[in-house]
Amino acid sequence: MANAIRFLAIDAVQQANSGHPGMPMGMADVATVLFRDFITIDPAAPEWPDRDRFVLSNGHGSMLLYALHHLVGYPDMTVEQLRSFRQLGSRTAGHPEYGHALGIETTTGPLGQGLATAVGMALAERMLNARFGDDLVNHHTYVFCGDGCLMEGISQEAIDLAGHLRLSKLIVLFDDNGISIDGSTDLSTSTDQARRFEASGWNTDRVDGHDQAAIHAAIMRARFSDRPTMIACRTTIGYGSPKLAGSEKSHGAPLGSEEIAATRAQLGWNSEPFSVPQAVLDEWKVVAERGAEARRQWEARHAQSPKREEFDSRLAGALGEGFSALMADFRRQLASDGPKLATRKSSEVALGVINDFTDLTVGGSADLTHSVFTLTKGMGDVQAGAYDGRYIRYGIREHAMGAVMNGLSLHGGFIPYGGTFLVFSDYMRSSIRLSALMGVRAVYVLTHDSIGLGEDGPTHQPIEHLTMLRATPNLLVFRPADAVETAEAWEIALTANRPSVLSLSRQNLPTLRSGDAEENRSRRGGYILRDAPGRRDVTLLAAGSEVEIAVQAAGILQEQGVAAAVVSVPSHELFLEQDAAYRADVLGKGPRIAIEAGGGMSWDRLLGAEGRFIGMTSFGASGPAAQLYAHFGITTEKVVTAAHEMLETGRRLAEPEVLS
Amino acid sequence: MANAIRFLAIDAVQQANSGHPGMPMGMADVATVLFRDFITIDPAAPEWPDRDRFVLSNGHGSMLLYALHHLVGYPDMTVEQLRSFRQLGSRTAGHPEYGHALGIETTTGPLGQGLATAVGMALAERMLNARFGDDLVNHHTYVFCGDGCLMEGISQEAIDLAGHLRLSKLIVLFDDNGISIDGSTDLSTSTDQARRFEASGWNTDRVDGHDQAAIHAAIMRARFSDRPTMIACRTTIGYGSPKLAGSEKSHGAPLGSEEIAATRAQLGWNSEPFSVPQAVLDEWKVVAERGAEARRQWEARHAQSPKREEFDSRLAGALGEGFSALMADFRRQLASDGPKLATRKSSEVALGVINDFTDLTVGGSADLTHSVFTLTKGMGDVQAGAYDGRYIRYGIREHAMGAVMNGLSLHGGFIPYGGTFLVFSDYMRSSIRLSALMGVRAVYVLTHDSIGLGEDGPTHQPIEHLTMLRATPNLLVFRPADAVETAEAWEIALTANRPSVLSLSRQNLPTLRSGDAEENRSRRGGYILRDAPGRRDVTLLAAGSEVEIAVQAAGILQEQGVAAAVVSVPSHELFLEQDAAYRADVLGKGPRIAIEAGGGMSWDRLLGAEGRFIGMTSFGASGPAAQLYAHFGITTEKVVTAAHEMLETGRRLAEPEVLS
Repeated sequence: MANAIRFLAIDAVQQANSGHPGMPMGMADVATVLFRDFITIDPAAPEWPDRDRFVLSNGHGSMLLYALHHLVGYPDMTVEQLRSFRQLGSRTAGHPEYGHALGIETTTGPLGQGLATAVGMALAERMLNARFGDDLVNHHTYVFCGDGCLMEGISQEAIDLAGHLRLSKLIVLFDDNGISIDGSTDLSTSTDQARRFEASGWNTDRVDGHDQAAIHAAIMRARFSDRPTMIACRTTIGYGSPKLAGSEKSHGAPLGSEEIAATRAQLGWNSEPFSVPQAVLDEWKVVAERGAEARRQWEARHAQSPKREEFDSRLAGALGEGFSALMADFRRQLASDGPKLATRKSSEVALGVINDFTDLTVGGSADLTHSVFTLTKGMGDVQAGAYDGRYIRYGIREHAMGAVMNGLSLHGGFIPYGGTFLVFSDYMRSSIRLSALMGVRAVYVLTHDSIGLGEDGPTHQPIEHLTMLRATPNLLVFRPADAVETAEAWEIALTANRPSVLSLSRQNLPTLRSGDAEENRSRRGGYILRDAPGRRDVTLLAAGSEVEIAVQAAGILQEQGVAAAVVSVPSHELFLEQDAAYRADVLGKGPRIAIEAGGGMSWDRLLGAEGRFIGMTSFGASGPAAQLYAHFGITTEKVVTAAHEMLETGRRLAEPEVLS
Repeated sequence: MANAIRFLAIDAVQQANSGHPGMPMGMADVATVLFRDFITIDPAAPEWPDRDRFVLSNGHGSMLLYALHHLVGYPDMTVEQLRSFRQLGSRTAGHPEYGHALGIETTTGPLGQGLATAVGMALAERMLNARFGDDLVNHHTYVFCGDGCLMEGISQEAIDLAGHLRLSKLIVLFDDNGISIDGSTDLSTSTDQARRFEASGWNTDRVDGHDQAAIHAAIMRARFSDRPTMIACRTTIGYGSPKLAGSEKSHGAPLGSEEIAATRAQLGWNSEPFSVPQAVLDEWKVVAERGAEARRQWEARHAQSPKREEFDSRLAGALGEGFSALMADFRRQLASDGPKLATRKSSEVALGVINDFTDLTVGGSADLTHSVFTLTKGMGDVQAGAYDGRYIRYGIREHAMGAVMNGLSLHGGFIPYGGTFLVFSDYMRSSIRLSALMGVRAVYVLTHDSIGLGEDGPTHQPIEHLTMLRATPNLLVFRPADAVETAEAWEIALTANRPSVLSLSRQNLPTLRSGDAEENRSRRGGYILRDAPGRRDVTLLAAGSEVEIAVQAAGILQEQGVAAAVVSVPSHELFLEQDAAYRADVLGKGPRIAIEAGGGMSWDRLLGAEGRFIGMTSFGASGPAAQLYAHFGITTEKVVTAAHEMLETGRRLAEPEVLS
């Protein structure tokens, strides 16, 4: 059975002339034991909620997963797909891609992400179990990972969190082959991994990764532990290859036809490429049979469960019909009250309403709860043995927070949101990117979103971060200007089929949408907040805390006889998705000035050739916020002056103002 | 002496009405022992090369550092500076900023960065020691860090590397106060930190952080260890405050005048705010006296050393006069040979020349040596006990690699470069940002820089990364088009006073600068590579691997009677720094098309309102590179068609083409 995995992987990599055979060859025995004896999945019902989750964190070994899926009978994982490994349009991408084939639980490839995402899945399982009991939710999360996953820093964040939360149904099988791309791991690490996991409260074990009986016993022991378990499986990379076994040369390149023949001889595998003897295929049938039986039993329990409807509704993830009406009422209330609040605080108010309405949401923060305002009344902490809570103490671990949110979302049953400062999006870039690549519903609450945070200084003041996030495909970035737009952003984010970032101010902002709450205007991404009286001479574009500056400048300009429209652009992405006529109408024909207390790159496409940007062209500085705005020239006066310059001198630049 | 630190911190935070008093109050005893009894620095000669390095990794406790610098007599750290804590223009920024005041060894604030940077400093010390001996280089690196630093994943990467390299002169003093911002660390972690450090080969110790004799003994023991040492100092955050000691409430806000008075009473401190009794000031003089004496002794040894000139030259960091001539010769050779090479390979060839010329350079890679081509002939590995090497095996730890490069550069004596894939700039964003914020000379060699990497698929294909890097202030981003531009980029990067990224192709590229090597044209950032014959109808802008497409398209257009100029833009930053006349001349007056196999946001400012971008508007896919270029429409044909559309239809968009 293990050799079937090995040769499907070998043959596919050879056919593609690209890929990583060493890991599937090395981990084939462990994979065989895990799938044959333990994993409960039903390839005929890949989305069955109580299935075990399997995550291949070392995703470069993707052929291991595809071979397994072929052998256990996922209907879409045909031999043609294996033959098309790494080809454009195939389901068998170079790394496992969520949504490309049935049964792929998450996208992996950036090392360590799979492990941390699996922590989120294992946590979701315990949290659902606390709500619905063993009858409906009681499964394991298994992870394969390699040295690379464990050397990446995100692994420590994930391990620490999983150990703290005692996620006992999480079982990690470490491909302890002592080899990384450059050669022996002795080149770069001396860490005793088992000891490290133990320091974070894990159960650990060691096993010969080619001794199937020993592997079976170790996994069995792990299932009885009250802690998460890491089993270090001592394996030989490229196992079976006479020349390349144990060498980094088997890691990331085809073995070559000669060595493949020698490997076939050494392992006694006589089948043609991509062909598996019927007797072996029959052996593999046990997985689907066990899974189907377990699923039928679960369905019987589910049919009897008094919580059936609640369970189904939760897993469907819909907020319910009343949500839109609730948010409309809330918007009107805000527009009527007109609070002067920091948008981080407006976000807390919105979350209060939302979290009362639905318990799908699960909050958390990377140890900045009282700064990012992500905790609302009545949300208990999620802790070991208290999985019925709704608030996750992620610790100072932004990278794992992002990945765990991905895992919670992918598992199903929750809509995760998590908060930190916008500048620390740097620490979780790769997790945010995977959210976007997979299109998961997760909300990043990123506050202190400009020099407006003041005294903490340039290390804490985001400059390029909004650009970085707006440049990321399939990510919604909201920078609301007031309490109304903040509520609108939350409404859109919670119903989107992609991740969202909410970029929120530390400083107080007035309500600019007073009496203007009939529709969720943020849905169009950008809109005319204050129209110019009569003709329009100039258009002021802004987002977030700088919309107030634009409004003030427009008022002064009006007194001076210049008609300025103010366009609020809470989401560049949604605005760019509007039709050309709408965009042209909003942007106007006259000169444009954009104002944002960050770098200007993302505004260029809205400004056109004549446009001016008023914002940051360097890192920030430490000082009170108002002084910083003045120091960096992000003021009403600068906007007014710029408008006069552009109009009175008829200045037309051949290109956008060059940043110095 | 410790109370002097405490009250300077308390008073400054109160005066600023902003800041973090809890940490300085808690770590004052540890700081006192470390500085009074051990640290060898000379405030009168802050740059003395063999000084001990001190890094405050938990940089929010900056007042601890400023108070210490005031007490030991750094001439610029006056009481006026303490009174101006966190004010615009002061040396006393919210977090310690490198270059803002004497003796600040590195910028800290983003947690964990200081610890990892200190690993680079400690490594630089050992590497210089291996070259110059104990007489010239023999000092310690001390680090203060908190729970936050140790919860961040980068800490594991740094700890693992330091333990592996046995950096025995690195001593970390962990502020083990059991408190983070949200409250008790029990909320989010159960890790036994000492055990974790031990798993990575560290010596560890535990001590009462308010028992000065015990602290002294522990540091003394650490200095005799053959391993790096972590001393967990059990402290009370906000020590001395009757109401707030031991509480997270003392972490990040002023104590308030009432509680300050109570703290003064409890600790028996009767001095006015910002005032320290002369007797205490006299005690603190021991630090400067010990340092001055040590420096004088070192200067005597230095004066006698046969390696004196070599040492001074190395610490000055200059490449020497021959460097420019060497690179000019090399450029001419390349332009004459006209190799067809991937730019990652051209980079290896350039490094071969550079590393032969100077041994200031120290290479390395995050376990992708044979993919990023950062190792040249004769560079021995840096390993424990083999510190005379020049190549660092960073392991699969991009984040620490960036921080360690910062540390190597800040320490002095080396020019570090390190390689990984461009997409993994995500994993080291915060370190790259700190390189830029500090203006250190470090070179990030980031290869596989587009969908041109092919089969590895979307997780490995950068899309938004060039935008993210180009949006970062003070960072030079080079995307060279051929071997000549690659050599030019290296020449500029190695002589720059800021960090550089080299974005390099996996796939082969022809030499486009054949016979055009008299000057380093990349210095201007963008230049006309192929002028249009006679009039210019259209301008094709491109960088890196897509310049070849632009050149081919220009050739086809010429046959069709359209005069197209090709502008290569290896560095947007340097181009934008040119004067307006040069830029206007290069960009031309006609329509412009930009081509890059990545997201287009950074090109908008070069395109103007009429411009078109041909590149990526989504994530990539897994498949052979040529098929991906065709699939995503980044082809010569698309460029030709776009040029005809823009010219023949006179199409003038009101705004840049909207990305879908």
